Formats: sequence, C-alpha cells, structure tokens
Amino acid sequence: MQSKSIETAVKGSLSAVSEREAVSTIYLVACGGSLAQMHLPKYAIDRNSSTITAEVFSSAEFIARDPVRLGSSSVVILCSSSGNTPETVAAAAFAREKGAYTIGLTTEPESQLAKTADYAVPYVSAPLIGDQDAPSAVILRIAFGIVNHREKSPKAAALLAALAKVEGISAAAQKAHSEDAKRWGEANKRESIIYTMASGSNWGVAYSFSICILQEMQWIHSQAIHTGEYFHGPFEITDFDTPIILLLGLGPSRQMDERARRFAEAHSKNVLVLDACKFDLEGVDPEVAEYIVPLVFQPLMRIYAVELSERRGHPLTVRRYMWKMEY
Amino acid sequence: MQSKSIETAVKGSLSAVSEREAVSTIYLVACGGSLAQMHLPKYAIDRNSSTITAEVFSSAEFIARDPVRLGSSSVVILCSSSGNTPETVAAAAFAREKGAYTIGLTTEPESQLAKTADYAVPYVSAPLIGDQDAPSAVILRIAFGIVNHREKSPKAAALLAALAKVEGISAAAQKAHSEDAKRWGEANKRESIIYTMASGSNWGVAYSFSICILQEMQWIHSQAIHTGEYFHGPFEITDFDTPIILLLGLGPSRQMDERARRFAEAHSKNVLVLDACKFDLEGVDPEVAEYIVPLVFQPLMRIYAVELSERRGHPLTVRRYMWKMEY
Repeated sequence: MQSKSIETAVKGSLSAVSEREAVSTIYLVACGGSLAQMHLPKYAIDRNSSTITAEVFSSAEFIARDPVRLGSSSVVILCSSSGNTPETVAAAAFAREKGAYTIGLTTEPESQLAKTADYAVPYVSAPLIGDQDAPSAVILRIAFGIVNHREKSPKAAALLAALAKVEGISAAAQKAHSEDAKRWGEANKRESIIYTMASGSNWGVAYSFSICILQEMQWIHSQAIHTGEYFHGPFEITDFDTPIILLLGLGPSRQMDERARRFAEAHSKNVLVLDACKFDLEGVDPEVAEYIVPLVFQPLMRIYAVELSERRGHPLTVRRYMWKMEY
Repeated sequence: MQSKSIETAVKGSLSAVSEREAVSTIYLVACGGSLAQMHLPKYAIDRNSSTITAEVFSSAEFIARDPVRLGSSSVVILCSSSGNTPETVAAAAFAREKGAYTIGLTTEPESQLAKTADYAVPYVSAPLIGDQDAPSAVILRIAFGIVNHREKSPKAAALLAALAKVEGISAAAQKAHSEDAKRWGEANKRESIIYTMASGSNWGVAYSFSICILQEMQWIHSQAIHTGEYFHGPFEITDFDTPIILLLGLGPSRQMDERARRFAEAHSKNVLVLDACKFDLEGVDPEVAEYIVPLVFQPLMRIYAVELSERRGHPLTVRRYMWKMEY
C-alpha cells in the first residue's frame, strides 16, 4: 500500500528541488542500517543519470571529509528512523550551512532531523513485507525523480509501476521461503560467524544484514563480502563449513554473484543462496527489475533472521550497549 | 627513494590528461588489495577539488554498473600489480571504448593492463617500508596532479614535499613498533577472528589488512569496520576479548577514531591502537599530514602481520585457492 502522505511528501520534495539551480551531486548520508538503504539509490543514479553524481557517506565521515563540492548545486538526502541520530542531524545542519538542499527521511515528524532538514519525508521503517514506502524505496523515488525531472528517464514510469508490485512479490517470496528459513535457522544456530555476499543493487542489503542483524542483533561475527571482491582475498577464508548467505541478484552484476556462487558452493557445504530469479516478477519491466529486487531481499532475509534468533534464544531486540549507555 | 622512471611516467600521464577536455570524474578501479589503494586518492580529491568527482569501484562492478557518466570527460585510473587481473584489464578496455582516458598502474610493463590502458605507470608493489612510489602514493600524485592542473591547489607543493619524507617516517615507526608487533603476534596467534577499524584517509588500509592479510593470507575471519559506523551495529559484537586493531588517524576524521577507541578499550581488553600522532612528522606541513599517514600505516601493519604469521606457522605466502586453480 502506498501512503498518500508519503507520496505527497515525495512530490513536494521533488517540486522544491526543481525550483533550485541544476543539481550536480546527490549526497546520500546516514548511519548503519539507514546508510545501507543508500546504496540502491546510488546504484540507480549511476546507471541512469548522465548529469548527476551520487555519493554515499556515513554521517560523521561526511562532516569530517567536508567535500569541497558540497554546495548550492548539491542535494543531500539523509535518513534516520528516530530522526535523532546525532551524526545525521549534525550532517543535515552542516549541509544546509554549505548551501545544499537537504531532505530528511524519518518516521518521526517532530524529530530533530525533520526540523533541521529543508524538507522532511516520512517512510515505513523496516516493513515485515516489502513495501514501496520502505526507506530505500522512498529514497529511490526521490533520487529517480530528480534524475527524471532533468533528463526525462525512459525508465521512470516502469520503475513506479514496478514499485507498486513490490508488496505482492515480497509476500509470495516470504511464503515460498518459510520452510527453508526454519531449516536454515536450526542448522546455523550454533555458528559464531556468518558471511553475507552480494553486489550491484543488493550490496546495501548484505551490508545491513551483516552489521545490523548478525553483529548488532545476534552478536554473530560477520562481514558483507562483495561477490567481485571475493576472489581477491576473502575467498581464501572459505572452508568446507564456512556459513555464507549469497544474494543472486538481477541485472548485469548477476554474473559476479553467479561466479561467487559456483566457487562458494564448490568449497563450502553451508551456502544459502537466495535467488532473485525465483521471485514472481510477472508484469515487472525487466529493465527495472534490478531496482526492486533489494526491496524483496531485505524483508526476505528478515524471516531467516527471525528463525535464527528464535532457535538461538537470542531475540532480535536484545542489545548490550545500544540505547543503554552513553557512547 | 623516488624512481625517476615512475616520476617521468606520472608527469607523462598528467601531460596526456591535460591535453584532453576538462575532467569531470576520476574513476578509481581495481580489485582487492589494489582497490584498497584507491580510497586515499578519492579522499584527497573529495577534500580538495571543487570540480572533479572521484568514484571507487571494484573492477567487475564497474563494468556491470556501466555508469552513464563514464565518457570522454572521465579519467579512469586502474591498478594491478601483475597487470593481468582479468577484471581490471577488462575494465580498462571497457573504459577506453566509452571514450575515457585510462591510466594503468602495474609493476609489469609488458602486462595486459600496461598494453590495454592509454598510459602505463609503474610503481613499487607492497614496499616493506613506506614509499612515495607505493601504489596509493603514485595514484595520489596523479589524482592530485590532475586537480592541481585545473585548480592550482595550494597544498600541491606541500604534499609532494611530505611524500618525500614518507620513507624516513615509516622506517622510524617500524623500529618503534618492532617489540609491540612481536608481543601482539604472540598474544593473538590463536585468535580466529580479528577486526580492523579506521576512517577517513586510512579506510583503505584497514580494508586491505582485513581482506588481504587476515582473510587471504592467514585464514582469519575479519571485517574492516568504519569507526563512525561502529556505533550503528558492529559495536554490539564487542566482548571483553574481541580482538580489534584500530588506526587512529590524523585530520578531521580522527575524532571518530578516538570515539571508537574509547568505547572499544572500555569493553575489550584486546584492542591494538596504532596512533598516527606518534609518527615523527617533523617538517611535514600539518595541512597534508593526513594524506601520508596511510602510507606509513600500511607497511607498519605488515610487521604485525609478519609476527602473527610466524607464530602461527602460517606463512603470508600460503594460499589454498589463489593462483592454484581456475576460479
């Protein structure tokens, strides 16, 4: 379901940006799980815009790096679910001071980010089923909208149509995977390290699963390995029992994922492959399918996380440090 | 020592670039340990250029992503020690087809990369002591040279002067750390996971140590954690005995490193801090010190790797897959 208030805000932000000078760079700035949402919109801009550059930065790095190019021709899109992540609020203020136009995504309209950014856009945080109002989807709509305004992208309409189908595709995928998720959770409940692998449009999903689900919520060691980089170092860690979750995406990066899959499955008996080709993408324009796949993978991986956490007796809500102390 | 042939090639590549249309983007493209060398030049461009964007891509991802902006106003700098990394050679050919100017760094002048790129530049591969002819230093000289040609950077002369001092700074740092490296190697020889942490100009050094030294050469699990991202997920993995190597850099990102250090040391007894403030930077302009610090950290970490590997009876040269089979 598409929220009217979100759609109104997306359109409002696009209208505000269109009234300014031409955008040369879109900076995508956030921390942790919200930062992970930024890789999909960057991927889409890279593959579709001839005039706009996209850069992804963790909020504190963005301020410390202080990019010289940040200025009046920049749009900075920031995201924080609570809207009170200090580094992200500071990054919004920093970017405004530099003359950039700032769009703050947050689920809390009264939060500091909503108040600090030039324009606040709401979203649905970590939906259990894929949603065109999930953070990376909303940021994608804004980023693609800015590109389309400038360049009249031939894919813009197809992308919006595909986004409207995400919920159904995701619900079907989760149903199809429910037994596999239980088996995987049981088989891996004693593992102390689990790697994730992805590339292309799905990189942020793997990063998010490694740092937010495995390290943060399960205290399981992890690294998100890029499937292209795997062969240039990380693959040497692969032993017969190394646990790996590999996302087989769509689009031109799939061949990297397939190469990594062949190697990983030949040398480890514990490779979980989640394959976007098995999603029911009927009616989705193949030209834009790669952009909606991460919106299906992210909540799909969540059901694997839930099954794992239940069998480990370690709820996904447990923290030892986060929100419990000063840091 | 600066190699005259390298300096001649750096100048030649700059001269060739200056004869072309204005550069809008420098793509920095390589795999694994060579990719890690690209983060320093990107950092320097971000912090110093008002007109040029820098993008870092793993070679196969670069081709798959096929950035629309890649074209005649792009310079693509590629790096492969052997010059025969298939993805990087393919990326050079791909970029040339798109009309970009390609500069290939390799230690083998007869290699495919040297022959495929528009211009080949040699470098000193993985020097045991920091060197202005190390790959990230040579790429930094080229990238900064392109920026300086366009924008007359006030830091250009100071940077070259600082690079000339890297060898002495590095030799002194390694001498100062030799006993600590032995102790650390002995204390950590049974660890199955070791994290690295860094930010800013040192990010590539941490990435390289995690994927090339620990995973590839030692079969030790690892992840390079950004010190700013640490607090948004990864810090929950920190237990009283979690092994962490943290690089305390210079420049504005140091405060992120210091925050991560405070937390990590408060919650783990096994944090190795390598502090750039302890390097003898006398005579180095403080404005450019942050750019040479990674050139000292990388070989410094190598002596820790050597001590670790010797005590584990696992030489840094051992591989189970790399170069031993088709993959």
